[in-house]
Amino acid sequence: MTNASKPLVGIIMGSKTDLENMSAASEVLSEFEIGCELRILSAHRTPAAVAEYASSAHQRGLEILIAGAGGAAHLPGVVAANTLLPVIGVPIPSTSLNGMDSLLSIVQMPRGIPVATMAIGKPGAANAGLFAAAILALKYPAVQEKLSAFRAKRRQEALDNQIP
Amino acid sequence: MTNASKPLVGIIMGSKTDLENMSAASEVLSEFEIGCELRILSAHRTPAAVAEYASSAHQRGLEILIAGAGGAAHLPGVVAANTLLPVIGVPIPSTSLNGMDSLLSIVQMPRGIPVATMAIGKPGAANAGLFAAAILALKYPAVQEKLSAFRAKRRQEALDNQIP
Amino acid sequence: MTNASKPLVGIIMGSKTDLENMSAASEVLSEFEIGCELRILSAHRTPAAVAEYASSAHQRGLEILIAGAGGAAHLPGVVAANTLLPVIGVPIPSTSLNGMDSLLSIVQMPRGIPVATMAIGKPGAANAGLFAAAILALKYPAVQEKLSAFRAKRRQEALDNQIP
Amino acid sequence: MTNASKPLVGIIMGSKTDLENMSAASEVLSEFEIGCELRILSAHRTPAAVAEYASSAHQRGLEILIAGAGGAAHLPGVVAANTLLPVIGVPIPSTSLNGMDSLLSIVQMPRGIPVATMAIGKPGAANAGLFAAAILALKYPAVQEKLSAFRAKRRQEALDNQIP
Amino acid sequence: MTNASKPLVGIIMGSKTDLENMSAASEVLSEFEIGCELRILSAHRTPAAVAEYASSAHQRGLEILIAGAGGAAHLPGVVAANTLLPVIGVPIPSTSLNGMDSLLSIVQMPRGIPVATMAIGKPGAANAGLFAAAILALKYPAVQEKLSAFRAKRRQEALDNQIP
Amino acid sequence: MTNASKPLVGIIMGSKTDLENMSAASEVLSEFEIGCELRILSAHRTPAAVAEYASSAHQRGLEILIAGAGGAAHLPGVVAANTLLPVIGVPIPSTSLNGMDSLLSIVQMPRGIPVATMAIGKPGAANAGLFAAAILALKYPAVQEKLSAFRAKRRQEALDNQIP
Amino acid sequence: MTNASKPLVGIIMGSKTDLENMSAASEVLSEFEIGCELRILSAHRTPAAVAEYASSAHQRGLEILIAGAGGAAHLPGVVAANTLLPVIGVPIPSTSLNGMDSLLSIVQMPRGIPVATMAIGKPGAANAGLFAAAILALKYPAVQEKLSAFRAKRRQEALDNQIP
Amino acid sequence: MTNASKPLVGIIMGSKTDLENMSAASEVLSEFEIGCELRILSAHRTPAAVAEYASSAHQRGLEILIAGAGGAAHLPGVVAANTLLPVIGVPIPSTSLNGMDSLLSIVQMPRGIPVATMAIGKPGAANAGLFAAAILALKYPAVQEKLSAFRAKRRQEALDNQIP
Repeated sequence: MTNASKPLVGIIMGSKTDLENMSAASEVLSEFEIGCELRILSAHRTPAAVAEYASSAHQRGLEILIAGAGGAAHLPGVVAANTLLPVIGVPIPSTSLNGMDSLLSIVQMPRGIPVATMAIGKPGAANAGLFAAAILALKYPAVQEKLSAFRAKRRQEALDNQIP
Repeated sequence: MTNASKPLVGIIMGSKTDLENMSAASEVLSEFEIGCELRILSAHRTPAAVAEYASSAHQRGLEILIAGAGGAAHLPGVVAANTLLPVIGVPIPSTSLNGMDSLLSIVQMPRGIPVATMAIGKPGAANAGLFAAAILALKYPAVQEKLSAFRAKRRQEALDNQIP
Repeated sequence: MTNASKPLVGIIMGSKTDLENMSAASEVLSEFEIGCELRILSAHRTPAAVAEYASSAHQRGLEILIAGAGGAAHLPGVVAANTLLPVIGVPIPSTSLNGMDSLLSIVQMPRGIPVATMAIGKPGAANAGLFAAAILALKYPAVQEKLSAFRAKRRQEALDNQIP
Repeated sequence: MTNASKPLVGIIMGSKTDLENMSAASEVLSEFEIGCELRILSAHRTPAAVAEYASSAHQRGLEILIAGAGGAAHLPGVVAANTLLPVIGVPIPSTSLNGMDSLLSIVQMPRGIPVATMAIGKPGAANAGLFAAAILALKYPAVQEKLSAFRAKRRQEALDNQIP
Repeated sequence: MTNASKPLVGIIMGSKTDLENMSAASEVLSEFEIGCELRILSAHRTPAAVAEYASSAHQRGLEILIAGAGGAAHLPGVVAANTLLPVIGVPIPSTSLNGMDSLLSIVQMPRGIPVATMAIGKPGAANAGLFAAAILALKYPAVQEKLSAFRAKRRQEALDNQIP
Repeated sequence: MTNASKPLVGIIMGSKTDLENMSAASEVLSEFEIGCELRILSAHRTPAAVAEYASSAHQRGLEILIAGAGGAAHLPGVVAANTLLPVIGVPIPSTSLNGMDSLLSIVQMPRGIPVATMAIGKPGAANAGLFAAAILALKYPAVQEKLSAFRAKRRQEALDNQIP
Repeated sequence: MTNASKPLVGIIMGSKTDLENMSAASEVLSEFEIGCELRILSAHRTPAAVAEYASSAHQRGLEILIAGAGGAAHLPGVVAANTLLPVIGVPIPSTSLNGMDSLLSIVQMPRGIPVATMAIGKPGAANAGLFAAAILALKYPAVQEKLSAFRAKRRQEALDNQIP
Repeated sequence: MTNASKPLVGIIMGSKTDLENMSAASEVLSEFEIGCELRILSAHRTPAAVAEYASSAHQRGLEILIAGAGGAAHLPGVVAANTLLPVIGVPIPSTSLNGMDSLLSIVQMPRGIPVATMAIGKPGAANAGLFAAAILALKYPAVQEKLSAFRAKRRQEALDNQIP
C-alpha cells in the first residue's frame, strides 16, 4: 500500500496564491493517505527548475504530477513535455477571463503530449486529487478500497440529503 | 506485460460517425500493443447499456475507459459516474459550435467525479490513447519502454524536420 | 382538475444549493396549484437513483420532469434518456463560466432525446414552472384558466407600472 | 387519438430557406402521424400576421407551436408573447456566428414568457418534433405508444450498430 | 427648433429596473433640450401595446425611438418591425451573460429591419441619446449647434484633464 | 426631394475586398434614389485622409456616413470621432473570428462618440443603407414614401411566399 | 545610457480612470530608470491631438509608445497608424465584457500596422513596461543589465517562495 | 546597417505546417533586408532544444525572436521564459477553435514575462515581421528608412486604389 510519508504525487503551481485553489488537491490526497509534495515552480520565471523537477520526478519516485496554472497557463504542458508520467492540469480562474483562457491553454495540447484537464478552479483541483487516486488504485489495492468507500459515502450523503 | 488480445482499455462513443475521430485513440493503443475494445454506446439512447458497461468494466479486466462525445457530450461523465476506473474524455467537434459545447460538457465535471479531458477532435483522441499508455506504464514496464521510445522518436523527428 | 396533494411535476436537482435557483419553479407551480415533488438526485453521484426515479416517474403519476444543473450539467439529459415524459432543463449559473457551460451542456442534446431548455438561473427556473403549466393546461381546464389569468395580470401590471 | 388531417402543431419560420432545417420537425411529426401545418411568417416583416397567427392558434385547434429562427431570432419569443400554448424554439445556424446568436436570442427569455429551446440546427428541429410528441403523448394514448416504440427502436439500432 | 415640451424621441424599456441604465439616454436628450417620453412596454408581456405604440409613433410626432432590453432582448427589433422611424437599440447587461446575449439579440437583425445598436449598458444608453441628437441635428439647426458645443466641450475637458 | 446625382451618404471601407459586403449598402441606397459616394479609406494606412474626409463631410453636403471594417475594425469609430454626422458601422466578417472581433470593435464605443452598429456582413450592410434611408425620410418626404412602399412590398412578399 | 529626466517612452490612455491599470507600466519603467511621460489622449474625443502626439513622438525623442484602452479600444491602433515607432497596446478591462472586447479591438490589427498586444489589465500594463525595457536593452547596455538583474531577482524570489 | 546574411531575427514554429502562416513574417523581413533564420522547434516535443535555442539566441547575435504556435500555444511563452530578447508571438489558427485558443494562450502571459502578441494568422505573421523592423529601426537607420518608405508606399496604394 502507499505510504503517506513517501510522496507519490507532486503538486506544482506558479505562485503561492494558487494554493487557494490547489490545496483542494492535496486535501483529497491526504484523505486517501496518498503522500504528496507541493512545489511553487513557474513555467515562466523558473523554466529550468520546472524542467529539472519534471524530468527527475520519475526517478525520485513520483508517479503522477498535478499542475495548476492560470491565464496563459503553460505550466501543465511544460511539465508534460519533460516527463513520461501522467500529468493532470487544473485551470485556475484568471482575473479577467474567469479561467476560460486557463482552460484553453491547458486542454488544447497538441498530439503527442497529453495533459489530463480538470474543471476550472477548486472543483477541478479536488478532482485532480481524485483522478490521481483512481490511477493509483489500479496498482495499490489500499487506494482502490478507499476510493470505493469514498464514492459510496458520497452517494449515501446525496441520497440522505433530501428536502424535508 | 500487456497482451494485445486481452483488452485493458475500453473505448466507447455515441455513434459510428465518431469513429472518424476516435480511431486515433485505438491506433495509438495498437502502436503500444495495448489491447482495447471499441463499443458504440449512447448515454442518451442506451443509458442502461452504458451503466452496465461502465459498472462491469473493472471486473471484466479493463483498467481505463476512454469516451468520446460531441454537443451535450454526456457520455464521459455518465461513464465516470458508474465506475471507479480512470475515465478519459474526448470532445468531438460539433456541427455548429466546433466542439466548444463538447469541451465544456466534458471538462466542467463537478467535484467528486473527474473526467480527464483531452483536446477537441483527433489530436485529443490520439492523446487519450497516449495518456492511457502513460497510466499503464506505471504498472507495466513494457508500456513504459514503448512510451519512452515513442517520445524519443517524436523528439528526433521534430529535430530532423528542419527547413533546408 | 389537478390536485395539489398529488404531484404531477417532479423537480430534481443535483444538490441542495441548487434550491436557491430552483425554488422559483416550485413557487410558480404552487401558484398554479399544481402538485410537485422536489428531489436531490445527482447524475454523477447517484446515477442509479436518477435512472430509477426517471424511469418510474410515469407510472407514479408524474407528467412532467424539471431538472436543474450547473457546469457539465448532465442531469436533464440523463433524466430525459430514462423517461418518455417531457423534460424541462434549467441551466444553473456556474462559478467560473456564469452558466454558459450549463446552458450548452443542457441545450445541445443529440437528435432523439430532447430537453426543453430554459434561460440561465432563476428566470429560467420560474419559466420551467410556467412551461409545465402551459403543457398541463392542454389537458386540465383549471390550469388553462389560471394561466390565462396569470398572463392577463402580468400584462396589466406592466401597463400600470409607468414612470410618473 | 390524433388525426393527421387535423393539425395539432403549427410550425412557423421566418423564410423558406429555414425549411432546410425545419423540415426535420415536420418529418418527425409525420412519422408520429401528428397533423401539422407549416407557415412562413416573419417577426420583423409581418409582425401583425405573426401576432394574429399566434393569438388565434388555440381556437383554431392547435395545441403546440414550433418556431425556428436565426440571428436576432425573435420569432419564437414573439409567438410565445401572443399565445398561452407551449412554444418550442429552434435556433437556426446563422452565417457569421454559427447559431450562437440564434441560441441566446431564443433561450434567454425573461421570467413570464418561456420558450422551450432545442439544440442548434437540424438535430434541434427533429427534437422539437419529438418534444411536441412527448407533450401530446400525455393526452393522446396513440402518440404515447408511438413514442415508446420509437425510443425502443432507436435503442435497438444503437445496440445493433456495433463495430464488427 | 425643437421644443422640450413636445417629445421627438420615445424611449421605451421592458421594466422599471431598466431605468438604471436607460436614464442616461433621457439625461443626454434633456441636456440637448430635445423633448422625450419614457414608457415601460414589454415585447413579451404587452406585445399589443408595443405594436400600437410603435406603429402610432410617427403620427404622434415622434421622430426617433430608443429601446433598451436585456437577455433575449426582442424589444428594439419588435419596435422596428412596427414603425418606419429610426430605431436605436441599447443592450442592457444581463445577470448571467453580462449583456453578450442582449447585444447579439439586438444587433443581429435580418436584412430589411435595421436596429442601430449601441454599446452595452449606460455608455450605450448615453450614446443612444447622442445619436438621436445627431440625427435630429440634420433637421434642427439648434440641435446641430448644441451638438457642436457638446463635442467641443468634451474635447477640451479631455485635453485639460492631464496628469499633473 | 433627394437627387441621386448629389450624394447625401458617404460609404467608406478599408479595402476594395470589403466591397463584396458593402455593395449591399449602395444597392439599397440606389433603390431609394439616394445619392451616395464610395471611398476606400483605411483608418490605419491613411489616417489623415480619413480624418480629412470625415471632418469635411458635412460641408461637402453629406448627411450620413456608413463605414464598414473587419478585425480590429477602427474605421467607423475614427470616422465618428471626426464628424458630427450620424455614423453607421458595419462589422465585416473576419477570417479567423467570423466578425465577432469586428462587431465588438465597432459597437463598444465609449460614451460620447456613438456608432450605430448593424449586423455582421451583407445583411448588416443592406440594413445600413435602409437605416440611412430611415434617417433621411425624416427630412425628405420622397424617401419616406419609398421607405413605406419598400416595407409594404417586403411584407407582401413574405405573406405570398408560402409553402404550397 | 538612458536618462530618467528625458523620456524615451510615451504612455497614453483615454481617461484618468485608466491610470489604475496603466500606472503599472510607468512603475516598471521607473524601476528600470527609463524616463517616460504620461498623457491622457482619447482616440475618439481628441483625435487630432492623438494624431499630433503620435506623429511627432519620434522627433521629440520618444522611442516607444504604450497605449492602454478599453471597450472599442482604438487608441493603440490609431497611435500606430500615425507613427513608425513600436507601439505596445494594453487591453483595459471593460465593464461588461471583462476586456475581451478591448483585447480583440487591439490585437486584431490588419496587415501593415502592428500593435504589440499585452495581457488584459494590470499584468499586461506591467509587461508593457517590461517589453519596452527589452526593446531598449538592445540599444542601451544599462537597461540590458537592469533587465538581467530583474529577471534573476524574480527567479530567485520564485525559488525561495516555497511552502514550508 | 543590417546585413541580410547575418540573422538578427529568429523565427521559430512548432511544425513545418506552420510555415504556411509564418512565411509571411520572413517575407516581410526579407523585403526589409533584415537577416532571419527559421527553425522548427516544439515547446512540447523538444523542450530542451527550445530552451537551448532561446537562451543562446542573444550571444549568437539574434536581437528579436518571433514564435508562432496554435492551440495550447506555449512556444512563444516558453521562448520568452528563456531569453531577455523581445519575443513576438503569432497565434496560428487552430482546427476547432479558429485560433481563439492560440490567441489566449499567447497573450495572457503573467506579469514578468511579456510576449508581444500579433493578430491571428497570416496578417499577424506579416505584422510580426513589421514589428521586428520597427524595433530594429530604433538602432539601424537603414531599417528606419525602409520602414518609412514601406509605410508611404502602402499609404499611396490605398489612396490610389479607388473605385472608378
